[in-house]
Amino acid sequence: MAHFKSIIAYDGTDFRGFQRQGAGERTVQSEFERALRAIGWEGHSILGAGRTDAGVHASGQVVAYKLAWEHSAAALTRALNANLPPDLSVWQSEPVRSDFHPRFAASGRRYRYDVVLAEFRDPLRERYAWRLWPPPNLGDMGTAAERLLGERDFGAFGQAPIPGGHTVRTVSHASWVERSGGLSFFIAADAFLYRMVRRIVAATLEVGYGRTQLVQFEALLADPESRWEGPLAPAQGLTLEAVIYENDSWRPR
Amino acid sequence: MAHFKSIIAYDGTDFRGFQRQGAGERTVQSEFERALRAIGWEGHSILGAGRTDAGVHASGQVVAYKLAWEHSAAALTRALNANLPPDLSVWQSEPVRSDFHPRFAASGRRYRYDVVLAEFRDPLRERYAWRLWPPPNLGDMGTAAERLLGERDFGAFGQAPIPGGHTVRTVSHASWVERSGGLSFFIAADAFLYRMVRRIVAATLEVGYGRTQLVQFEALLADPESRWEGPLAPAQGLTLEAVIYENDSWRPR
Repeated sequence: MAHFKSIIAYDGTDFRGFQRQGAGERTVQSEFERALRAIGWEGHSILGAGRTDAGVHASGQVVAYKLAWEHSAAALTRALNANLPPDLSVWQSEPVRSDFHPRFAASGRRYRYDVVLAEFRDPLRERYAWRLWPPPNLGDMGTAAERLLGERDFGAFGQAPIPGGHTVRTVSHASWVERSGGLSFFIAADAFLYRMVRRIVAATLEVGYGRTQLVQFEALLADPESRWEGPLAPAQGLTLEAVIYENDSWRPR
Repeated sequence: MAHFKSIIAYDGTDFRGFQRQGAGERTVQSEFERALRAIGWEGHSILGAGRTDAGVHASGQVVAYKLAWEHSAAALTRALNANLPPDLSVWQSEPVRSDFHPRFAASGRRYRYDVVLAEFRDPLRERYAWRLWPPPNLGDMGTAAERLLGERDFGAFGQAPIPGGHTVRTVSHASWVERSGGLSFFIAADAFLYRMVRRIVAATLEVGYGRTQLVQFEALLADPESRWEGPLAPAQGLTLEAVIYENDSWRPR
């Protein structure tokens, strides 16, 4: 029985999030486990690096599982893809140490949030982006994004994944950039609080629209007991781009 | 009763093409007519610039219809969008002369075909592109694309829209370009034959993969009695980007 790590991608639109729920709820985990069973897996549950919400996409989610597999890792990737639905796929599989845990071993995560700037609905782009109009002030949003950098208590922007857990996180990158017909927000941190990215996206956009002042945004960052009570950016604009493993200690020796 | 022209966009995935079919077939025309009826339209049929196939997308299809409407054209756009499904929208509406026909008045059409180059399935990009691997030779494809320019008989690549109609068309632009993680083919002509773009996309890709020689491709262009018998590029990569009206003769005087 070997232990494997797979990088997976999904269009989150038709999933009730990553984590397995009750029977009949279509989730990434349940669909991946179904494909694993089709190639002989008899495990109870795979492990995932992050529990993306319903509607959130991924181009670099990481899962791990034990499997009796006598062929190559590339053949495993192909076998899984042949058994997965069109909105879920595997990009890479490799053997890892038996104690590898995709969440606890991760040193960082990177997310992207896409905004389409258009006056009218755009059926070809709104599946993967939030449509807004008129354009916000990108310079003000960039200034707000810079304030996120470093080790901070982000208690105003999210809850810890476990009750009573601390809310200090270290943001290593945060920027809003222009792209064709829209804007994208890139953020990387050691880990994120529940819905932290979607709250930060909405808050920096509110700064860009002048509805929240930069000093108010800074006050939220300075006081973890405060709460961002503005909007939450919708799920369809968010993509988990990568989970980062800093060293190779999880590789089989 | 005024005559209006609207520019519309749609995600073709869940439509059985543009043109109204039998009852129960979901098409762009039938959904647009449903929205028009909701705002008081009592017409029999709208006119369209081009009959896109099932699965083909549009970001610049043009339709025309007569409507008793007492408000502004911008208000018409908003009223239609409020009544259209998420995968179909209106970007602009304006009054036109009563004899305007979106197909016969058009002097040109522009299509884009998107290819994703990836070894494994990519759920976030395959809704709007054809995935291929390994990469083809872009230089050879560019050379083949150049051969398309000018007035030619494209009989080898499609049928005329009406039986016995001629198959001469004038291609004013044709190019394959690299984009992030893939390739795009841009083509503009006065008009296109049935499935001509999807056949040309497939044929130039076959040249790029070396499975069709450039001289064979040229022979197909030289002989309208010959037939491209290779593959047809799948619908989901194709987008009707624009219908072009060269002069303003259709504007109300």
